[in-house]
This record gives sequence, C-alpha cells and structure tokens, in this order.
Amino acid sequence: MRLSITAFLDYSLPRPADLLIALEVAQTPDQELIEDLLTVGGTGPLTPIAADDGLGRRTWARGAGRVTARYTATVDVERPATLLAGLAADDVKSLPASVVSYLFPSRYCESDRLEEAVLRDYGHLSGGDKIAAMVAWIRAHLTYEPSGKLGTTAIDTMIARRGVCRDYSHLLIAMARAADIPARMVGAYAWALEPEDFHAVVEVWLDGGWRLVDPTGLAPEEGIARIGVGRDATDISFLTIFGRADLIEQRVSVTRLDA
Amino acid sequence: MRLSITAFLDYSLPRPADLLIALEVAQTPDQELIEDLLTVGGTGPLTPIAADDGLGRRTWARGAGRVTARYTATVDVERPATLLAGLAADDVKSLPASVVSYLFPSRYCESDRLEEAVLRDYGHLSGGDKIAAMVAWIRAHLTYEPSGKLGTTAIDTMIARRGVCRDYSHLLIAMARAADIPARMVGAYAWALEPEDFHAVVEVWLDGGWRLVDPTGLAPEEGIARIGVGRDATDISFLTIFGRADLIEQRVSVTRLDA
Amino acid sequence: MRLSITAFLDYSLPRPADLLIALEVAQTPDQELIEDLLTVGGTGPLTPIAADDGLGRRTWARGAGRVTARYTATVDVERPATLLAGLAADDVKSLPASVVSYLFPSRYCESDRLEEAVLRDYGHLSGGDKIAAMVAWIRAHLTYEPSGKLGTTAIDTMIARRGVCRDYSHLLIAMARAADIPARMVGAYAWALEPEDFHAVVEVWLDGGWRLVDPTGLAPEEGIARIGVGRDATDISFLTIFGRADLIEQRVSVTRLDA
Amino acid sequence: MRLSITAFLDYSLPRPADLLIALEVAQTPDQELIEDLLTVGGTGPLTPIAADDGLGRRTWARGAGRVTARYTATVDVERPATLLAGLAADDVKSLPASVVSYLFPSRYCESDRLEEAVLRDYGHLSGGDKIAAMVAWIRAHLTYEPSGKLGTTAIDTMIARRGVCRDYSHLLIAMARAADIPARMVGAYAWALEPEDFHAVVEVWLDGGWRLVDPTGLAPEEGIARIGVGRDATDISFLTIFGRADLIEQRVSVTRLDA
Repeated sequence: MRLSITAFLDYSLPRPADLLIALEVAQTPDQELIEDLLTVGGTGPLTPIAADDGLGRRTWARGAGRVTARYTATVDVERPATLLAGLAADDVKSLPASVVSYLFPSRYCESDRLEEAVLRDYGHLSGGDKIAAMVAWIRAHLTYEPSGKLGTTAIDTMIARRGVCRDYSHLLIAMARAADIPARMVGAYAWALEPEDFHAVVEVWLDGGWRLVDPTGLAPEEGIARIGVGRDATDISFLTIFGRADLIEQRVSVTRLDA
Repeated sequence: MRLSITAFLDYSLPRPADLLIALEVAQTPDQELIEDLLTVGGTGPLTPIAADDGLGRRTWARGAGRVTARYTATVDVERPATLLAGLAADDVKSLPASVVSYLFPSRYCESDRLEEAVLRDYGHLSGGDKIAAMVAWIRAHLTYEPSGKLGTTAIDTMIARRGVCRDYSHLLIAMARAADIPARMVGAYAWALEPEDFHAVVEVWLDGGWRLVDPTGLAPEEGIARIGVGRDATDISFLTIFGRADLIEQRVSVTRLDA
Repeated sequence: MRLSITAFLDYSLPRPADLLIALEVAQTPDQELIEDLLTVGGTGPLTPIAADDGLGRRTWARGAGRVTARYTATVDVERPATLLAGLAADDVKSLPASVVSYLFPSRYCESDRLEEAVLRDYGHLSGGDKIAAMVAWIRAHLTYEPSGKLGTTAIDTMIARRGVCRDYSHLLIAMARAADIPARMVGAYAWALEPEDFHAVVEVWLDGGWRLVDPTGLAPEEGIARIGVGRDATDISFLTIFGRADLIEQRVSVTRLDA
Repeated sequence: MRLSITAFLDYSLPRPADLLIALEVAQTPDQELIEDLLTVGGTGPLTPIAADDGLGRRTWARGAGRVTARYTATVDVERPATLLAGLAADDVKSLPASVVSYLFPSRYCESDRLEEAVLRDYGHLSGGDKIAAMVAWIRAHLTYEPSGKLGTTAIDTMIARRGVCRDYSHLLIAMARAADIPARMVGAYAWALEPEDFHAVVEVWLDGGWRLVDPTGLAPEEGIARIGVGRDATDISFLTIFGRADLIEQRVSVTRLDA
C-alpha cells in the first residue's frame, strides 16, 4: 500500500527549550520510503540521532517562541495482515539479545502483576492463539474513550475498562509479557484511522520475528507506517520538550495513493 | 585496584525453567579482566548473549532440580574516585543517541513526578554540584535497612526514608533525571561492602561521560566492578528465572589482591 | 448455635506503648453473649470505649515488656444462613444516615475505579442476585493464599487473583459499593474456620438491613460471632499498638457447644 | 464575626439520579445559625439526614434534567484564632471513642507511610508546636495551584509540591496522624477566601478538643463556617450525585455583616 503522510506540529515555547522530534517514518524492509522531508521552524540547527533499537530516527533541536514542525512522506508499506493463529512462541532462551528487555515489566506495563491472571485465563493457549485471545478480550471489554487520567497503566486500563490506543497497547503488551512473550510498543502513522491522529500499536515476538498487532482494531496492519519502537509510551513520544510548551495545533493526515 | 571476585548461586527448581544469568564482570577500559570463569551445574548448554547497551554479557540456560552457578574473576579496576564538584551538565540536545533513554522516567524511577521538588530544592545548583547535593540529602535522610516491601519505587523510598542499595540508587536516578541529567543503574561487585553481597550503584552523565556514584556511600568507586547497566533494577537482575525457584544459598566475595 | 470462644495474644513491647484491643464479641440481637471475660496482663488499668457505629466495644491499655490478652466467651448465635437470592437493593436516598458512608470508596476498597467494570459485568442483575454473582466470581477466580504484600487493596487482589479473608472481603465490598450497594467489613470469630484464626467477612445492606456474607465461603454465617464493623481493615484491627511490638504468640479457638 | 453566606449549584442530569446535598452550615457552639434556607429545584421531596459524627446535616433528593440548589444563611461565628503554640497532645488512650478513627490512615491520607519521615523531621517537637511546624513546612514548600490530577493523595501532594485546599488539608491530616495526633477534614464556607469557593480545612485534636487550622493560610479561622467533618475528602463532598451530571454553574459568596 502506497501512503502519503503529513504531520504538522505547532507549539509556543515561553522560554528556550530543547526538543526531541520523532516524526520520521523508519526505513525497514516492510516499509520503503520513497521520499520524505522534515521542516522545522523557529529553532536552531537540527541534530539527527538514531532511535532506540536502531529502528528509526529522531531529531534534536533548540527552539523558542513559535515552533513548528512539518513532516511529509511517501512510503510503500508491504506488510501482509498479521495472522496470529498458529504462530509458535519461541523459548525465551532462544531470544536474540535485543529482544530480551521486552520480556520485562516497564512503567506502564506491569506484566509481573498479571502473571497469575494470564496463567489462569490463557494458560490453555499458546503463541499466536494466546495473543489472539488476549486481543479478543480487550476488544470485548474496553470502550475506546479517554480515561481522563494521565499516567494510566495497563492495570489501570484493565480495571477502568476504557482507554485510547496507547492504553489498549499497554494492556496487550503487559498481558503478552506476563505470558513470557516479548512485546513492544510502536509509534506509527495509520491509514484509515478515524479520527486521523498519531497511532500506537504493538509488536509481539512470535515464531522468530516481530508481528504487528493493533489491539484497537481501528487500523489494518497493512496500512501502518512505523516511526519507532520502545518498551512503552515512555519511548515513543513524537515530541519531547525539555521545558514548558503550549500546543497551538497538531495535525496528521494519511492518504492512500495506490487505490 | 586488583580484585578477586567469587559469586555462588544455589537454587532448586521444581520444574524445568529457563534462566538468564548476569554474573560476569564487563570488560571495559576502566576495569580489565585478567581472567574469569562461569561454571553452571544442573542445566543444559549455555548460550551467551550481549547485555543491554552493549556493556557486559549475559548467559541463557535451561535447568531443572538443583541448579548452581559459580563465577570467579580477577579484575584490575583502574577508576579514580568520582569527583562531582564542578562537573558540567551537558545540554540534552548534545547527548548521544544511546544516552537519551536515560533521561526518561522508568518503572522504579518516577522522575517526572519529582520535577517540581527538584527544581525547588536544587534549582540553584547545576551539574556535578547538583548531583552531590542530592547524594548528600539521601545520605542524611535515609536509613539503610530493608523497607520490607517488594516493588519499592524512588518515591516510595523518599517517603519511607529507608531502603537498601537498590532503593538508594533508584532515588538518586529519579532525582537526576528530574533535573534532565541522564542517570542509569549499575549492577556490580564492590570491594569493602559490608555485608558482602551484590551491589547496585548509579552512573550519571556529566561532562561528556558516565560518572559512577554510590549513593549509599558504602563502597568506594575505585573498588567497584560493573556487571551491567540499565534503566533501573528491572534491567540488572543477576539471575532471572522464568518459572518457580527456591533459593538455597547465595554468596558473594570480593577481595583486594594488591594491597 | 452456641459457641465457646477463646483468643490469646502474647506480645513483647520494647518500650511502653498504648494499645487498643478489640477482642470482645458484640452484644446484638443475633448474637447473645452468655458470658465473657477479657484478662490483660502487663498493662496498667483498662479503659473501655465504644467501637465504631456503636457496634461492639474496644479497650485502651498502656503496657510495656511482655503483654498478654486472653478473651473467653460463650455466645448464642441465632442467625440464619444468608439467602441473597431475590433480596432487593434499597434506593440510596432511603438509606439511614449511619449507612451512607458505606456507599463511598475507602482506602482498601477503591469502588469508584470499579464502576464501569461492575456496570458492564453485573449491570443486568440487581440486589441480592448481583451480590451473589460477585461472590461467585470471586470464589471462581481467586486462590486463597497470602499475596505476600502489605497494603493490598481490592484492585490489587482482583489483579493478583489471590488473597486471604481480608482481601476477599475488600474485593466484595468494593464491587458492591461500585454498584451503589452499601457494604462494610466485619471482624469476627468463626466456627469451622480452617485453620483457626480471626476472620474477616462482609455485610451488605439489602432490603432494609445488613446481610452477613463470607466471600471466602470458609465459614457458615450461622457460626460467625461479630467483634466489630468498619469501612475496611483499617477499622477492625483486633489489636492496634501505638509503638513497636514483637509477636510472640496468637491463638484463636472457636468450639460449638450445642451439637 | 457575623457572616452572610450564599451557595448556588446548577447541574444538568441526563437521567434521574439520587443526590446527597451537604450545603447547610452546622449548628455548633462556636457557630450559631441566625437563619438559613435550602431551596432545591428540579427534584422530588427532600429527605434530611444527620451527617457523619453528628456534626451537621445532609439532604437526599431525587432529580432529573435541570437541578438547582440554593442555600442562604446568616451565621455568627464566635471562634477565636487558633493558637497552636504550647497546646499539649493527648495520650491516645485518653481519646474519646468518637475521636479514635481519626488516628488511622484513610484513602487520601496515608499517614502510616509517613511515620518515619514525621518522626525524623518533627520528633523533637510535640503537640501544637509540632502541628505548627508541619503547617510551616507545607506553606513554605507547596504552591497553591491545581495538580491537574484526580485522586491526589497526601503523598502525591508532598511529592508534587502543589495542590489546592483539599490537597493541603490531606497532607496536614496525614502528617498529624503519623504523629498519633487525631486529625479530620472540614468542609466549610470561608470569609475572605480568594477566589470565593467552598473551602476545605483541618481540625486537629489537641488538649482535649478539636482545633481548627487552615493549612493554606488563605482564610482566618474566625471567619470559617463549618458544613461537616470526615476522615478526608471522601466524606465532605458538598454534592454527591449517584449518576451522571454536567456542571452548569456553581457559586459561593461569603460576606461579613458586622464590620
């Protein structure tokens, strides 16, 4: 699927502040960048750095007053829909070094506290079938609406029975890790997402590779362009400002070009 | 300082389980391994993998019944005492990519919740002087004793006013990150630690490099041999067992050879 | 059912401390005290006071060194088994003033966070049927064993899927209050409890009165002698020591005399 | 001080709901009601009940659609400014039964977690001097502004260093109880409060009686008219709606008549 992506951020900074921008689509075998351009206004020179896990890029800048960032890209996503059924879970001791940290609990994904519940509720399943059952539970029991609370964790979401893409993803990640299946969070652009916005989805490690899953069911995996990955929302913020900032406007648009 | 290190773990596993062992001293410019040997009993073949951040090694094994691990090493630590006074903090936008994630809150280090307190209490200081003042507060206000609670975070420790090396380290890390100074946790062997045990200390990023600090003050930095680093205790466990295990015995010994 | 009750506490206090003892069975229409005696050793004079809600008694004392308390009672419990099925919930606006506070969340019973889940899972039921369904869920999903953590709340227990009588009770109380059904915690002696110990159960307000329910199912309601009631475990401690104390021994025995 | 008080609430209820209204000034020796009137529109008949601890009144109603409540009162407050200095703390074992529950932690006041900190920081003081020192710490270290987070507890506030009257009160209550000094929360009208609103203050039990303290320092104790008391904010809500409601308007006005 060929996608045309536009993101636009517009902020006001009362005092000079450093910014870490993560808007650029990662170049990987399953998503080929045809062209892209990041334009930042209101800052000094840009310093690109690698993102976590070597997947994707980030950009440092120092700005003050009105700061804008515009990103446009054309990308070919060649990723089939993820078929979880029947996928085997790998023995943890066969996991590559770079995957190991995704077995452990993280700030928003308290997988250690869910071990007993996951064993009781999903212990009869394994691998992709287990993940599919978790996704089904999440979709059946959660309402897609903001919880109205900052700092919501996977357990908060499981209890409150509501949340947005970030919360759905944290919950699936925590449940997967509680079953010793590595899981990480993905910041992304998504085709057909309503309303248009940045999206957060999940990758689980099954049968020797990362498998993309959208626990909200709002966006097909074939139309997702990944920006970056990390342990949870802590790592995939599209904009981190080291100081105060007021949001003026923020827009995302993803259009399909080849259909 | 030349150190002779011995660690011995003895566990009983009721059912077969995968184990991730992190006992080996990292080979780095400031700590040169003369020789070392890891011997594991009661498991199948060992699979070594890299540790997080490329610093150090870890070893996968699958065991059952009585499992033992013995590690012995001779290491030359050539690290001067850390002098914090006067060290400059780097602009965050100049930080290397590999350091950036150590700016952010993590599970046991809720730095975002401490920003206002750190600004009020340490805002008049900067860099190494700021870190030194934080260490002084911690040493003056905490008692070194177990909190008797699992899952203790930096804020729990700040409130309870007690903890062990892991808690002291989490608190210093959270305070440093709240001031936009990167900080990470270090699992280590430490000479002169009483009682002998594994140790946890902190590295803060100042003036272009990681600086080792022991917030407990129990071990001199010159006698610390690092095993691995990570965001917090989640990442530096010396033994992770994916299943049930009962501790039979655990011993650590660190002797100085050159004095 | 006529019960013979004995409780014995034996503590060592390194320094003089005030103690609040709540061992005495409450005299109420459904449990008639034939005789009882509280004997306290190692303290100064005893000061009896009323307990919360006017149900039961408590006793202040000041002790030091070895402190013992022995309570013996004979009590006729004339309470039929609680039949929840078909009991109506009262409109909250018809509740007596003394019942209102049992609608609200308390420290260990975060009922406000469970409102959505309780509405989704039990919204099709009402009154006693709703409570019965909650009890059934709890019994089917929890394992009776200590969580190994102090300060466990209802939500902690719902997530961990394990706990003891206190945890089971907190969870049922939180679920009931989330459905606007008043619920309170009861400290009690219980016949046929294995192993013998103090017990914690629940009272829910249905059809104009408090109904005793044991969510653990370990003790029949007909053999429960209530000591006191409160919002949660905070209020029904059988011994509160304002200072340090070491437990030497603690024993409870409940024997049926009439069968 | 003679005060004229007006409170006005205007809500919209999408579906019929029971309401518990707590707007009326309590009649006590230190605040004599000259006249008052509660007028409720949009509901069925009103059912007055006693408030917690026998201090004050509450009113049940069932409403739907647009619901308004208007309360007007003239009250003579004859309460001198609270002088904490030198007031003795009572032995806990001499406390009246009705005061005992105010020694214990409650949902928003985790006094048990503050015991060590309070012992270390205030252990050299006692009674009113200890409370005065706590108030001074709070005023010096907190900024009066919303924390932007619901469900904020005393410890959250101590860490965040910011809050409103409710948060200041929770923190003082938790600190006092951690020192075995009973403390409770007071919902009130306050003269000279800027901006005009409902107020929350604290009563601590010293030298045989409750002493009113405003930890924010925003309102003089002589101009405070109490509505009700409780363990924390859970108990003193001026309006509890058992269902959904949208706030349209809410106004409070307190005018001095005798100066």
